[in-house]
Amino acid sequence: MTRFFVSPEELKQDFLVLTGENANHAKVLRLQCGEQVILCDGSGHECLCTISDVSAGQISLVINNRTDSATEPSVQVSVYMAFSKGDKLEHVIQKATELGAYEIVAFPSARCVSRPDDKSLSKKLERWQKIAASAAEQSGRGYVPKVVVLKSFAEAISRGVQADKAILFYENERATTLKMALSEGSFKTIALMTGPEGGFEAKEVSKAADAGFSICTLGSRILRCETAPLCALSAVMYDAGEF
Amino acid sequence: MTRFFVSPEELKQDFLVLTGENANHAKVLRLQCGEQVILCDGSGHECLCTISDVSAGQISLVINNRTDSATEPSVQVSVYMAFSKGDKLEHVIQKATELGAYEIVAFPSARCVSRPDDKSLSKKLERWQKIAASAAEQSGRGYVPKVVVLKSFAEAISRGVQADKAILFYENERATTLKMALSEGSFKTIALMTGPEGGFEAKEVSKAADAGFSICTLGSRILRCETAPLCALSAVMYDAGEF
Repeated sequence: MTRFFVSPEELKQDFLVLTGENANHAKVLRLQCGEQVILCDGSGHECLCTISDVSAGQISLVINNRTDSATEPSVQVSVYMAFSKGDKLEHVIQKATELGAYEIVAFPSARCVSRPDDKSLSKKLERWQKIAASAAEQSGRGYVPKVVVLKSFAEAISRGVQADKAILFYENERATTLKMALSEGSFKTIALMTGPEGGFEAKEVSKAADAGFSICTLGSRILRCETAPLCALSAVMYDAGEF
Repeated sequence: MTRFFVSPEELKQDFLVLTGENANHAKVLRLQCGEQVILCDGSGHECLCTISDVSAGQISLVINNRTDSATEPSVQVSVYMAFSKGDKLEHVIQKATELGAYEIVAFPSARCVSRPDDKSLSKKLERWQKIAASAAEQSGRGYVPKVVVLKSFAEAISRGVQADKAILFYENERATTLKMALSEGSFKTIALMTGPEGGFEAKEVSKAADAGFSICTLGSRILRCETAPLCALSAVMYDAGEF
C-alpha cells in the first residue's frame, strides 16, 4: 500500500488531504477513489485512509483507523559513520534507513580525507534528510531516521556513549566479536561506530574505549567504509529478533 | 599487507615472480626490495614472500612460508540473486565478496524486467568475475568467489537445494524468520535466494518450497533487491560466529 509522509500536525486533523508533492505523487501513481493509502507522520504514527475525492492538486481522504507503526524495530540503532569520499554517506543513509536505523550520525575522524565545509554542509544535510525520507517511504517505515552531523570525533564519542551499548568497530581488534558485546545484556539503544576509508587511528580507538565503547571486530575480512556500518546494522537487527 | 592473486600452477613453483598486471600493480604501489607481500591462488592457498629484486616488468620473490588462508569463513554461502536493473548485480558481487560469500549466482525470475541476452552475457560475466577478484584482493580474502549465471528459475531451484540449507526470502512471509531456519541445525553450505525489483511471484515461492527451500522473512521493512542479499549474508555470517 502506498504511504505518504505528512507533518504530525496534519495527521492529527479530522479531515485529511494530500496536497503539493504528495498530491503530485498520487497523480503519478494514478490513485483512484476507493483505493486505500497510509498516511504517516514520520514519528511512528499512522493513519489508514480511503481516497474519497481526486481533484487537481488535492486528494481527499476518509480516515479508516489510526494506529502506531508496526514496521519499527524494537531496538533503536544509531549508525555513526565517519565522513567519507564520494557518495558513500548517501549510500549508507539510504540502506541504513531500509535496514531500520533510528538515526545516522556523520562525524569527522583523523584519517577522513573528505569532510564538507560549513558552507556546503547545510545544503548537503537537507539532501541527506530527503534521502532518508524517501527510503523510509519506500521501505514502509513509520519513522524517518534523523541525519545528524557532528563537528568533532570527541563529540561523536560523548554522544555515542549515551546509548545503552556503544560499539566501535576496529580492523585491528581480533578477540572481541559483536556477538560477545551484544550478549552482555538486553539493549534498547545501540550506537555502532565505523571509520573512514583509512580506518581509525589507534589513539582514537583508545579514547573511545576509555569513554566506554566496546571495541569489536567485524570478522577477518577487511570491509569498505560503506559496507561495515550496513553489515553491523544487519547483524544487530538479526540479533534483536527482527528477522 | 598487499596481496596478489596468481594461478594455482604458479603458486606451486619453487621460484615465485610477479609479472604482467601484478608487476604493474606492484610498481604503482612502489613496493621495494625487502618488503613482504602475500601471493594467493584464489582457492585458499597462500604464500608469504619477501621481495628480492625489482626490475622492469618483473618482481622476484623469496618464499617465507606457505599456508592456508585464514580469512575464509567456516560456512560456504551461495548468494542467489535474480537479475535486476542497472548495476545492482555488480554492487552485490562486490559487497558479497567482501562479506565472505562463496559464490554469487544470478538467475532469471518471472518479474525480472532486465536480463542480459546471450550475446552480452559472456562479456558481462567476465566483467563480474573481475569485480569479484578485485573485491577479494581488497578485502584480504584467500578465495575468489565464482560468479555463476543460470538460464532459468527452475535451474536456480534445483541447484540451490543441493546446499545443506536453502532459504528463499519472500516479502509476504511473516512467520518464519531466518533465525528459525538457521537454528534447525549446523550447516556447512547455505543458499540464500532473493528476488528482483518486483519480488517473487507466489507460484515461484511455492515451487521453491516444494523443492525443499525454507521460505523466510527479512523483517517487516521492505528491502530493495540489492539490499536484501547483503543483509541476509551479513546475518548468516554473524550467526556462524564470524564476528
